Amino acid sequence: MTAPRSPSRGHVPLGPGGEFDIIRRMLAVWGGIATGIGDDAATIAPPAGRLVVSTDTSVEDVHFRRDWLTHAEIGYRATAAALSDLAAMAASPLGVFLALTLPESEVPAVDELARGVGDCIRACDTKILGGDVTRGAKLALTLTVLGSASHPLLRSGAVAGDRVYVTGRLGGPVSALREYREGRTPAKPARERFAHPVPRLKEARWLASRGSHAAIDISDGLIADARHLAVASGVGLHLRSESVPVLAGAKPVDALASGEEYELLVTSPGPLDAAAFRAEFGLDLTEIGEAQGDEADVVLTAGGRRVAPPAGYDHFTAQ
Amino acid sequence: MTAPRSPSRGHVPLGPGGEFDIIRRMLAVWGGIATGIGDDAATIAPPAGRLVVSTDTSVEDVHFRRDWLTHAEIGYRATAAALSDLAAMAASPLGVFLALTLPESEVPAVDELARGVGDCIRACDTKILGGDVTRGAKLALTLTVLGSASHPLLRSGAVAGDRVYVTGRLGGPVSALREYREGRTPAKPARERFAHPVPRLKEARWLASRGSHAAIDISDGLIADARHLAVASGVGLHLRSESVPVLAGAKPVDALASGEEYELLVTSPGPLDAAAFRAEFGLDLTEIGEAQGDEADVVLTAGGRRVAPPAGYDHFTAQ
Repeated sequence: MTAPRSPSRGHVPLGPGGEFDIIRRMLAVWGGIATGIGDDAATIAPPAGRLVVSTDTSVEDVHFRRDWLTHAEIGYRATAAALSDLAAMAASPLGVFLALTLPESEVPAVDELARGVGDCIRACDTKILGGDVTRGAKLALTLTVLGSASHPLLRSGAVAGDRVYVTGRLGGPVSALREYREGRTPAKPARERFAHPVPRLKEARWLASRGSHAAIDISDGLIADARHLAVASGVGLHLRSESVPVLAGAKPVDALASGEEYELLVTSPGPLDAAAFRAEFGLDLTEIGEAQGDEADVVLTAGGRRVAPPAGYDHFTAQ
Repeated sequence: MTAPRSPSRGHVPLGPGGEFDIIRRMLAVWGGIATGIGDDAATIAPPAGRLVVSTDTSVEDVHFRRDWLTHAEIGYRATAAALSDLAAMAASPLGVFLALTLPESEVPAVDELARGVGDCIRACDTKILGGDVTRGAKLALTLTVLGSASHPLLRSGAVAGDRVYVTGRLGGPVSALREYREGRTPAKPARERFAHPVPRLKEARWLASRGSHAAIDISDGLIADARHLAVASGVGLHLRSESVPVLAGAKPVDALASGEEYELLVTSPGPLDAAAFRAEFGLDLTEIGEAQGDEADVVLTAGGRRVAPPAGYDHFTAQ
């Protein structure tokens, strides 16, 4: 039988077997960012604040294609998407669980996948606490993220009179996707936004600490996610299309509809200091509209005139 | 647009869209056992004891086949498998997160899937706290379970001299699987063990409160899981094959190798009161061997003579 792994980093020694061999390979890639792996479940000290938890699946040929991204990028992107849900709540990450479904043909790529997951975990200053590895026809990663927050930001916190802000510049992911679908190579800034999205964790805590009322991360597209927030809060969100910050090289319409941005849409009762935000994070913070009335929907304007918003992306409707 | 859902049960009102329609259908099936759904993440009061977390994926054609189980059974079984990891740690469940990957053709079955998940959640006296729905080529369910335990049972707690016990009677799932694979209908007791496994949550807390040292749930097969526990603890586990309790109609060899039992293997420094256990839970608790020496492996005997153990099931080796 395989020599038992030494119980360093608090891991439980793992027995023999193909599944454990894969876990051993991932642990070798992860080093000190994985802790306490190998029991039936992880045990974690309870957080001081509220426990914040989300789970998010990325599936081959739905969320990514293997000919568009490297395995490291697939791992990075899936992990960032999940951690972004903690950012949307202004939570600090406690750790991440990875449930990996692996086709037999992808077993050689597991080190690269683990490297991408690990790079994002390290960039977000958190840990890998556990997971599951199983066989399956398509590569899929389900990331469950745990965090803590003393005052979580909710989708339902917006009130009439709030100003609406967005972080970063939008349109990159959808414009990268369009280039791929049409057989071209995306421009570097758009591709980088697509392959390495950034969970805005510290930015969210900054925004929460300055009195923001509500937040959501942009995963379905600015307009679609603004609608989620409007419905959850029971207010209208009036957005000025000309104010929406567009990534260099992307089209303004892309900035309204592009999903998987993982930038934050927040509402705040008073003005937020965009210059201080930029000085702290090197990132734009742009006021794009305000919350008004109780019609729980998005009202989009262009030059003061109401216009029809573009559709967002939903795996079960628009394809 | 769709009328916003009333914020009963603490759910956040959901906007329009195909993915939200599926979530609305599941919430209608779940009623009061789902709480606080609809934000980017769930917020939960932190537990008093240690936080115990596990994640577990069930994939179509790997863990189940749609022609062998109803959708309700697929949902029940996947949920039970995940909650069993909390039982193995002697934790009390706090709640469950469901990440569902759904082929387009399976959308009509979502109510039945949700019913099965809900039935198991209700049987285990816990809640659904969140999840994710995505499209994919194969039906897959990743259940992440949260629990709390003041003194979690670990795989690594066994010491030489411990007695080894197992709950229930083994061999059902593998014998049901064999019948299905050979085109026959399994006997009712074996099929029931396969379709509706029982996470031994209360049983585990009973065993922990009576001084048990270590536990693991039997998901890979008695011998394979005993080996995991032996390796984690750094002791030998000497098991008497003739003592292993066999389900009515199953073969003794099946009881040694059958995976997905979700019964518990525990070690205890002193004798456990099997009669009291039976009176409490209506379930066998059987002493099947003892921990000896420091060779971290399983030693199987038959009539006092050492015999070769059968192989367990590993998705990445034995098929």
